[in-house]
Amino acid sequence: MQVQYKIWLEKDHEQVFGEGLKNLLSAIKRLGSIRQAAAEMQMSYRQAWGHLRTAEKRLRMQLIVTKVGGETGGGTELTEEANILLERFERLENTLDPLIKDHFRRIFLD
Amino acid sequence: MQVQYKIWLEKDHEQVFGEGLKNLLSAIKRLGSIRQAAAEMQMSYRQAWGHLRTAEKRLRMQLIVTKVGGETGGGTELTEEANILLERFERLENTLDPLIKDHFRRIFLD
Repeated sequence: MQVQYKIWLEKDHEQVFGEGLKNLLSAIKRLGSIRQAAAEMQMSYRQAWGHLRTAEKRLRMQLIVTKVGGETGGGTELTEEANILLERFERLENTLDPLIKDHFRRIFLD
Repeated sequence: MQVQYKIWLEKDHEQVFGEGLKNLLSAIKRLGSIRQAAAEMQMSYRQAWGHLRTAEKRLRMQLIVTKVGGETGGGTELTEEANILLERFERLENTLDPLIKDHFRRIFLD
């Protein structure tokens, strides 16, 4: 038997941050492109945009900045606030993961 | 912003114990009746039985004992194993709940 879990954040009883947004922002950060991030996550560009817009509205926070042209030919970056949120959510999961598994083992397997 | 979570147990990549079964077993234990437990959870008797049978099959464990007649007119009880499982799952949730909220506060609100 294994323990499984899901952690997400809510604001006014609506989900504002979870696995999906974490993976999407993380891919945008790495790839510098919503289109490539969407492709990697096997969602359409439209779905990715929809997800970002909904999250921005619920969080009342801008998550991405799109740069047009320039030396590097443009691209999309996370805002400072999105970077902080992503980093905190990952820190929360990384902190809780071993605690959840450890307490499960102590209670169920000892 | 608040943190939310869901914890469940799996065996061979199938869910074997979660919120639904916890509440159903807990209600059967308290009420001594599958029918009353189902009614309280706003599910049909058939659904409650289906849930119990699926869980028993996946867990390879008997969860309930139905007594017919007798001085008290019968009723349904949890098996010793089901009682242990229920108690452990509740202990796991009760242990993790404050840890999850505490780490969320430390990471997000400090």
